[in-house]
Amino acid sequence: MAQKNLLETIDFPSDLRRLDEQDLPQVCQELRDFIIREVSSNPGHFGASLGVVELTVALHYVYNTPYDKLVWDVGHQAYGHKILTGRRNVFHTNRLFKGISGFPNPSESEYDAFGVGHSSTSISAAYGISVASQLNGDPNRKVIAVIGDGSMTGGMAFEGLNNAGASHNDILVILNDNNMSIDPNVGSISRYLVQMQTSKTYNRIKSKIWKVLGRFNKIGPKARTVLQQHQHAVKSLVLKESNLFESLGFRYFGPVDGHDIGGLIRLLGDLKEISGPKLLHIKTTKGKGFVPAEKDATKWHAAPGKFDINTGEIIPDPNDTPIPPKYQLVFGKTLLDLAQKNEKIVGITPAMPSGCSMNLMMEKIPGRTFDVGIAEPHAVTFGAGLASQGMVPFVNIYSSFMQRAYDQIIHDVAIQKLNVVLCMDRGGLVGADGATHHGVFDIAFLRQIPNLIVSAPMDETELRNLMYTAQLPDKGPFSIRYPRGSGVKMDWEKPYEEIPVGKSRPISQGDDLVILSLGHPGNFVTEAQKILDEEGISIEHHDMRFAKPLDTKLLDELPKRFTQLITIEDGIIDGGMGSAIAEYYASLGVTMKIIRLGVPDRFIEHGTQEELYRECGFDIQSICRAVRRLVVQIEQPTVTAADAE
Amino acid sequence: MAQKNLLETIDFPSDLRRLDEQDLPQVCQELRDFIIREVSSNPGHFGASLGVVELTVALHYVYNTPYDKLVWDVGHQAYGHKILTGRRNVFHTNRLFKGISGFPNPSESEYDAFGVGHSSTSISAAYGISVASQLNGDPNRKVIAVIGDGSMTGGMAFEGLNNAGASHNDILVILNDNNMSIDPNVGSISRYLVQMQTSKTYNRIKSKIWKVLGRFNKIGPKARTVLQQHQHAVKSLVLKESNLFESLGFRYFGPVDGHDIGGLIRLLGDLKEISGPKLLHIKTTKGKGFVPAEKDATKWHAAPGKFDINTGEIIPDPNDTPIPPKYQLVFGKTLLDLAQKNEKIVGITPAMPSGCSMNLMMEKIPGRTFDVGIAEPHAVTFGAGLASQGMVPFVNIYSSFMQRAYDQIIHDVAIQKLNVVLCMDRGGLVGADGATHHGVFDIAFLRQIPNLIVSAPMDETELRNLMYTAQLPDKGPFSIRYPRGSGVKMDWEKPYEEIPVGKSRPISQGDDLVILSLGHPGNFVTEAQKILDEEGISIEHHDMRFAKPLDTKLLDELPKRFTQLITIEDGIIDGGMGSAIAEYYASLGVTMKIIRLGVPDRFIEHGTQEELYRECGFDIQSICRAVRRLVVQIEQPTVTAADAE
Repeated sequence: MAQKNLLETIDFPSDLRRLDEQDLPQVCQELRDFIIREVSSNPGHFGASLGVVELTVALHYVYNTPYDKLVWDVGHQAYGHKILTGRRNVFHTNRLFKGISGFPNPSESEYDAFGVGHSSTSISAAYGISVASQLNGDPNRKVIAVIGDGSMTGGMAFEGLNNAGASHNDILVILNDNNMSIDPNVGSISRYLVQMQTSKTYNRIKSKIWKVLGRFNKIGPKARTVLQQHQHAVKSLVLKESNLFESLGFRYFGPVDGHDIGGLIRLLGDLKEISGPKLLHIKTTKGKGFVPAEKDATKWHAAPGKFDINTGEIIPDPNDTPIPPKYQLVFGKTLLDLAQKNEKIVGITPAMPSGCSMNLMMEKIPGRTFDVGIAEPHAVTFGAGLASQGMVPFVNIYSSFMQRAYDQIIHDVAIQKLNVVLCMDRGGLVGADGATHHGVFDIAFLRQIPNLIVSAPMDETELRNLMYTAQLPDKGPFSIRYPRGSGVKMDWEKPYEEIPVGKSRPISQGDDLVILSLGHPGNFVTEAQKILDEEGISIEHHDMRFAKPLDTKLLDELPKRFTQLITIEDGIIDGGMGSAIAEYYASLGVTMKIIRLGVPDRFIEHGTQEELYRECGFDIQSICRAVRRLVVQIEQPTVTAADAE
Repeated sequence: MAQKNLLETIDFPSDLRRLDEQDLPQVCQELRDFIIREVSSNPGHFGASLGVVELTVALHYVYNTPYDKLVWDVGHQAYGHKILTGRRNVFHTNRLFKGISGFPNPSESEYDAFGVGHSSTSISAAYGISVASQLNGDPNRKVIAVIGDGSMTGGMAFEGLNNAGASHNDILVILNDNNMSIDPNVGSISRYLVQMQTSKTYNRIKSKIWKVLGRFNKIGPKARTVLQQHQHAVKSLVLKESNLFESLGFRYFGPVDGHDIGGLIRLLGDLKEISGPKLLHIKTTKGKGFVPAEKDATKWHAAPGKFDINTGEIIPDPNDTPIPPKYQLVFGKTLLDLAQKNEKIVGITPAMPSGCSMNLMMEKIPGRTFDVGIAEPHAVTFGAGLASQGMVPFVNIYSSFMQRAYDQIIHDVAIQKLNVVLCMDRGGLVGADGATHHGVFDIAFLRQIPNLIVSAPMDETELRNLMYTAQLPDKGPFSIRYPRGSGVKMDWEKPYEEIPVGKSRPISQGDDLVILSLGHPGNFVTEAQKILDEEGISIEHHDMRFAKPLDTKLLDELPKRFTQLITIEDGIIDGGMGSAIAEYYASLGVTMKIIRLGVPDRFIEHGTQEELYRECGFDIQSICRAVRRLVVQIEQPTVTAADAE
């Protein structure tokens, strides 16, 4: 059947709204096909967007976007939204360097009401937008937050509900319930939502609401009274005291089928007419419409590579040669191994067991592995509670999400000097996820905390040995950060060696200049050195290993032989390890010119990690340039801090 | 009636547990009188401890502390607990320099199971302790978290409930409901708790539970079956689907009278026999037993000074002379004034309207002032939502609590360059509240964030002008931090002047040395200068005003005239403003010896602010010493970074 392609006619939601309702199932199908096709050749987040195709179409059909404001929680489900709002033709640049962002971003489109990336922010932001609209004299503006059941476990979502629910603001929260975060969901909320759906009471209420809403649509405006009366009756009967969300001041509707486009459109149309805080609970299937993704939603949360859109088979990279293991795998295997030897070790992850490879321990030692849901503050303090009783928790949190637990690190771990091992996965520039996800602040925000050890391994063996060291008795609060992706060593599974805390590691000796690196970028230095050697430039290189405590013994020796040094770290320059070294020399009054390489003082967008290292000026070539500038004493203008970046 | 004083016989809970139950009301009365007497002469937190006298006695009577673990949320209600656990005779040193802490602290007593100070951590910590006990082979250890209804609005408490509620762990959460944080409570939870108490259903359930528990006590162990049957019946009838906490997997009991010591003891005894996660909801009166505090719980949250224990009249300080206004009052008055002129201004506070003086705006412009409850992450993102629509929110959060919103500052404010004004009250050393409350990390943790302006006023007029500047169009994310307590100017209400962002302010000219200060400690420099002038030492002093952006124009000029400088800030030295200056000069390769004064790399305990400035080495005399050491070029060993601290 050679139907006209409708999606191609939709540049903006106004085009969508011109279509007949009966055309919408076709739009949904085309949108879903489009997403599958695009992601199959340019991998990105996947399952979540497929799950909300109908919701996305319904929202833009019913609401007057961009005047009405749509806030997507996390935002990796917003591909359909992007395609319908002016970005269909550039969608092939999704997550690529200089291309469109994988998350909603107001600087990209006026349809992206609020920037997102981390979870559980949407209700707070939507409530803020709603209050502003009221104050600005736009009381009729509708504000909708779409939040997954995974994000609903984040405490911030609860804070938002608690605050907005006590207001009279016209805000709609759509709970997109697929019983998944990236991994299957955990915790009471998750269990509660499953119960709700299977409970007879709820199904009864649901059908009553549907009936009355149906009636409402047929008999027009006067029906509002009927609706209100009915709702009132239902409410005083069961709803009011029987629902978590009603307890928090939200009128609850659902659960309903999130893949029934007609039903959604009727329901949203009706909800537009009901004032005050409302929550609509929809049930969806993550990966809907792509069978492999429906079957294994964790694997297909993001597409695991380019794939065949018919079979889901991953298309192997033609250049696929054996590469060193990912730091993630090294973490997972080492944690399991250490936990098998030390029964005090506990693993804690906030909803990232497969992402950080803690699933390896979870499978073998489930009793000592805890997925606490998307709840970073809780994860750290839960770990502190365990440590207060002599356990050694490894709390693995992606670096940028560790920002959520900053107070807990200070207040619950560091003040009490508890043996919590904070493992920051995705430390440094992460690549395609972009500005919200780069883990670039951790060295600086941890370095200032008393009692805390701040370390980063240069390779897999070092990660392994830092983990080994951290679980030895009485090490106190210990942080280890490592990047997303592969290291450099194939043969990393060597016998454990304790690493002396605060001790650097000499990599090479040299005369012209000294480079002090922290973590994985030390390997860039090693590569740069090969190039510079050819040019007759001799550099000395030390892997600092620790941003805190600093190896002051090494630092005290260097001025005897050098007057210039370069620091390099995969993190923000201001306040980082290079800053610690500058502090130290300034205190001594030692003359040492220090060029700090790392992430400059601006937010870095998305791209491959290699592209971003170059953009920030600490890839191999940039290191060579920085060295040449210092060593080759040609006449040149004074280097300023801005140049150093 | 010359009764024997019982409290004097109780050194530890074991002594308490030897008493007859009928003696406990007398113990409660004596404990209450003791607290009132002590706090009347040595002011500290007050209302919360009076409210939980009966609960405190009951807990230590029923549970086997310190084997059983008691976690007090926030901890300012734990005075009674401290007095009963070995600290009665040192309680007069409460909150004083080198005295006992105002909060539970495991390094002070084994009865303090977990260190606290910030709100909403208790459930997470208690769950961690419970899991550890299980893993350690102590499954019979009881773990109790006591949390106020105010703390329950913090998202972290919800995360803890969500996680612990899905477990089978034997954990008891006691919800101490007095409908207050420091100010009256807000939000849906608060409304919900009030509803629960007035609802017929709940009163019915409550009396049923009481009845069955009464029966249980009388007929002994066999009654457990009866109890369980009954509970099951109640549960399937109403409770299970009708209660917020049951939704989260906790068995709910209450509400009950928290001042009925006999009732509490019976109930806790019974709850000890019920396994799994449980929540007991008790109703108490903040300030119970001291009429003025019962009448005005906000005023008496902490005692407002020494007072007459009969009348509650505040005893005036004999040295009371007019002093400059507190920064808090300047903030409150200025915010109101600016908000009256600029209708885009909105005030947001997480449960601290009276503490930060936002109550002044709240009274006059309630529609634009929002107390969002104890919910710092939400507060900041709610502000970002408002700012995304053109409003200018002033979000006032105590510096140490701002650590809770660190991710939201980066993710929701800074990345989007939104005009949110982050006002950090209690920046720097706060005094008697101690380690958990010192706001010493903010300069360092904010300075590394791109797009953010980081400022601190040296006096009241500067605060006023920074606030004025921050609300001018298109300033972007703007932070202002100022200390607890009085400034230095009586006549601060001058016409507003815009402060150029990144521009320092010269305070004095000199030849021997230059001092760069940030914020209030600039006044210590002014005082030190008077002393040094007499000694013939001539210092130059600049008030930097901004830690970011730095006044590089000034910094570029200084090396022409000086080779040594001192920086001073009321914050952690590592990573702070002094570090920024060291970074800058190191990048240029300029020789400049920099001694950084501020808070050293350790957690600072409690004391008066003056005592702590001295302890940290940046009070007036310490500044003089640091200057002399540099200027008077006597033979001396090299100054190391450690000396500089």
